[in-house]
Amino acid sequence: MANAPDWLPIARWLPRYRRADLLGDLGASIVVAVLLIPQSMAYAMLAGLPPVTGLYASTLPLLAYALFGHGMTQSVGPMALTSLMTASALAPIIATGQDPLAAATVLALLCGAMLIAFGLLRLGRITRLLSLPVVSGFTSGTAILIGLGQLGPLLGIRITGEQLPEQLAHWLQAAMQLQPAPLGFGLVALGLFWLVGEALPRLLQQRALFSRLLPIVVLVLLTRYAHTHPQLAKVGPLPSAELTLSWPTATLDGIAELWLPALLIGLVGYLQSLTIAQTLAQQRGETVDPDQELLALGAANLAAGSVGGLPVSGGFSRTAVNAGAGARTPMAGVFTAGWIVLAAATLGDLLALLPKAALAATIVLAAFKLIDLHQLRASWRYDRRDGAALIATLAVTLLFGAMPGIASGVLLSLALYIHRTSQPQIVVLGRLPGTEHFRNVERFDTETWPQLTLLRLDENLYFGNARAVEDGVLARLDADTRDVVLVLSGVASIDYSAAGMLDKLDTTLAARGIALHLAELKVPLQQRLAANQLLGALRDRSFLNAHQAVIALLSAEPSTKNPA
Amino acid sequence: MANAPDWLPIARWLPRYRRADLLGDLGASIVVAVLLIPQSMAYAMLAGLPPVTGLYASTLPLLAYALFGHGMTQSVGPMALTSLMTASALAPIIATGQDPLAAATVLALLCGAMLIAFGLLRLGRITRLLSLPVVSGFTSGTAILIGLGQLGPLLGIRITGEQLPEQLAHWLQAAMQLQPAPLGFGLVALGLFWLVGEALPRLLQQRALFSRLLPIVVLVLLTRYAHTHPQLAKVGPLPSAELTLSWPTATLDGIAELWLPALLIGLVGYLQSLTIAQTLAQQRGETVDPDQELLALGAANLAAGSVGGLPVSGGFSRTAVNAGAGARTPMAGVFTAGWIVLAAATLGDLLALLPKAALAATIVLAAFKLIDLHQLRASWRYDRRDGAALIATLAVTLLFGAMPGIASGVLLSLALYIHRTSQPQIVVLGRLPGTEHFRNVERFDTETWPQLTLLRLDENLYFGNARAVEDGVLARLDADTRDVVLVLSGVASIDYSAAGMLDKLDTTLAARGIALHLAELKVPLQQRLAANQLLGALRDRSFLNAHQAVIALLSAEPSTKNPA
Repeated sequence: MANAPDWLPIARWLPRYRRADLLGDLGASIVVAVLLIPQSMAYAMLAGLPPVTGLYASTLPLLAYALFGHGMTQSVGPMALTSLMTASALAPIIATGQDPLAAATVLALLCGAMLIAFGLLRLGRITRLLSLPVVSGFTSGTAILIGLGQLGPLLGIRITGEQLPEQLAHWLQAAMQLQPAPLGFGLVALGLFWLVGEALPRLLQQRALFSRLLPIVVLVLLTRYAHTHPQLAKVGPLPSAELTLSWPTATLDGIAELWLPALLIGLVGYLQSLTIAQTLAQQRGETVDPDQELLALGAANLAAGSVGGLPVSGGFSRTAVNAGAGARTPMAGVFTAGWIVLAAATLGDLLALLPKAALAATIVLAAFKLIDLHQLRASWRYDRRDGAALIATLAVTLLFGAMPGIASGVLLSLALYIHRTSQPQIVVLGRLPGTEHFRNVERFDTETWPQLTLLRLDENLYFGNARAVEDGVLARLDADTRDVVLVLSGVASIDYSAAGMLDKLDTTLAARGIALHLAELKVPLQQRLAANQLLGALRDRSFLNAHQAVIALLSAEPSTKNPA
Repeated sequence: MANAPDWLPIARWLPRYRRADLLGDLGASIVVAVLLIPQSMAYAMLAGLPPVTGLYASTLPLLAYALFGHGMTQSVGPMALTSLMTASALAPIIATGQDPLAAATVLALLCGAMLIAFGLLRLGRITRLLSLPVVSGFTSGTAILIGLGQLGPLLGIRITGEQLPEQLAHWLQAAMQLQPAPLGFGLVALGLFWLVGEALPRLLQQRALFSRLLPIVVLVLLTRYAHTHPQLAKVGPLPSAELTLSWPTATLDGIAELWLPALLIGLVGYLQSLTIAQTLAQQRGETVDPDQELLALGAANLAAGSVGGLPVSGGFSRTAVNAGAGARTPMAGVFTAGWIVLAAATLGDLLALLPKAALAATIVLAAFKLIDLHQLRASWRYDRRDGAALIATLAVTLLFGAMPGIASGVLLSLALYIHRTSQPQIVVLGRLPGTEHFRNVERFDTETWPQLTLLRLDENLYFGNARAVEDGVLARLDADTRDVVLVLSGVASIDYSAAGMLDKLDTTLAARGIALHLAELKVPLQQRLAANQLLGALRDRSFLNAHQAVIALLSAEPSTKNPA
């Protein structure tokens, strides 16, 4: 179906849908639905919303992604990171006594609208603003917040305060409230889920389907036990589970309050989805268009908002389960959605019995797996600046919450890059004897000439380093210098400010009787300069490479040799 | 005086002070004082402050700069740009009914404190964040605002509103108020100042001292005329002109309100002063240390604040006058300060008679000279992105005022640089037959080999372009490729994110039976990689240059020739 439009992938795979696909998708949909039901409810609670919103968010969004998504086995829904960010976005709303539910849907709608807008503008590259250290620091930070935040429900105590400092302040009095029964239940739940979710599969050296379903068995057992122990908190009755398309009228100041959180949630969720989709696509020898993924995830979030859910994104664990359970096409997601609607409609009173501590235990374990200290060590060892960016993002996230964390992380890594390039290395070149190659005179045994100075600029020239380059070049000249050759092999772009600097430098040097030349000027730059009066004079003194510059500027014998 | 401390330049020049210096400085001080008195009053009015504050700001600051400044003929005081920025910083203060005078002094003190802090931290580089297009767009924009803002006082009408849109809204009803007498007087004043300040000197092909003083003659004549016409607005009586060291107690929220404006005013003023000081220093074969200039200008602003003045900076015109009139050392500034104190103390009732329209005329002419359309054309022709940055800064300045203008300009040029480097050029290299040089196969007639692909990366590798590089490399491989050599001659830095990408790329290629190699890895990068497990495998497959990589990887004959 080569004539199927790129923006509607379903038109490509649906016509080729086979019976084998159906079987695989159906099987997977059941597994995922069973896992998704408690998980979505847990993540809704994590976001500070009624558990049922998590179920809503696991219905229509899957259909929307199935229509537009390139990731064939991608499974979308509420995720830990985005749910925590949602919680911190809703905190002020709740504080002012507004309805968090309406705000969450506005958040999802804004999220979706922005992602779709980015997709139409083909801004798939936008996630490149998130450097590895920032993403890693942010993920670990939020994971810690998530884990600590769930210790309350897990151990049956109330811990208020969304950020770490407030939470710690509450720990002491919280510890006082500890009751043996809920405490024991929580710890047992944690242990059991760890056993069947982590230890056992590692022991079995494989992730067979049955091992995937063991957590559900544990959940059922815990629910049974909790049922007979009223002092253990339950999820409680769900509101009537008929899905109603409720499109909230977003007030303007609501939007003004929520657009930035929505942007950050969208960005983080998108980065996560894209990474998963591309990883799985690579395994299947397929590709995922970043811009298409923006559209798909945007549609999924619009859908989430329109059914009164919270922002959604692709999730590592659930997508792995979906693929592992044999899903072949996004149709698996459609089936999953169907099962969830069915469950919400029929199992309402059963789901109401789920003990909150059990759901909390699954979140704590999921969060714990997100903490990545290896990145911290590795990045710090690789480059202090990268390590610092990671630590700063982590610290800000822990101290001030998810939003400030990711925002300051992005700004910091931008600032660091500008700082990196603001003091370019300026290398004095000499010729490797008997070759046409020129190298750093301080590092190689090279020939040089007193009246001729060859300088290699190892950075793009732009406003951020123009003056540093000017000063650096002037500092490297001595009395007998008559010709200076700037070797621009490392310069891919020269912005207007830097071009002005070169013009000025040429004049300054000419006044001292020194001629400025260029070498290895990249062709795009030659063309740019050719189209301008700017640097016109310099253009005529530009050589193909350092070798030809030397040949042209002198036929003298090497006058000095400096040791390596 | 080689042992004189760098941070106190006066200790170097004062001991060598000669009689000739004294004469030069005295003469210049008189000329500058005569020009400075009306000018400073005008700029104080421009900032929305009583004219006398301009005089205050032209006293102690000059002494402070004389102590710490490297610029031997630099003349500091209230300037058009900084005064306008002060006006827009004070607007909200005035709106809330607070005392603008106290706020202005707090502004100057904050400005000074920050500049000194930057100086001690040796952050002289900070102005490099201001690209040429941003500075140019900002200057032209503020110049237009200044000029239009002064049309009111010039033509004897009231035009409220600090930004252009508000102003334009007021123009119509303002035009209704036009009175023939003030209108005529304003236009005549404008014409006369233009005649003696611009036309005549250009006609005389020189800027003799007398031509410098002609504007004062015109001012006197206008004052005389205005004296007999009560309907022409005058400056009015100055408060008792005894300078009182008034150190305002800055309230914390006052600081919270003013630190950002203070920062931007300081930045712009510093950039202006530094440029002037360095230009003049070059002419005298001297140098100006950017960090020392920070300290000097910071001290000048502390001084301005402590005498109840407004933020000050070095000014093009007045410094040119000072140098042109024969100033040899900062002592000229000290004398100037003396004259101004004397004038303020004795000529109070005379200065009170100055017609506001005359002062406005001088500002309008000064502002008009700051509008620079050449930069607009040149930058747009050189690179649309630079042109766009200029236009955006200009537009935001006109529509939203000086502060948002400079701030958005800085952010925009940073974003543009990131964007510039986010899609690096990846060049397929071939060998120039019979040489050791490798060039773009699309641009040169080169030898290539099917099983070996040489790719030159023309950009530093960092989080912003890591994924683009990965995709780009993979896209340039074909079926028979067995070896890929990344030629890193253009790569000065590889950040942690990009190192991770290379690691991943190596694995991906290995899975396809393709070996990844590096060439022309810069020594600092070699060292960084050597210190890490990261890229350990790659490190052992790194060649000095493309030539040696080819020798090592195959001894085959060129199998294809592709035309240029």
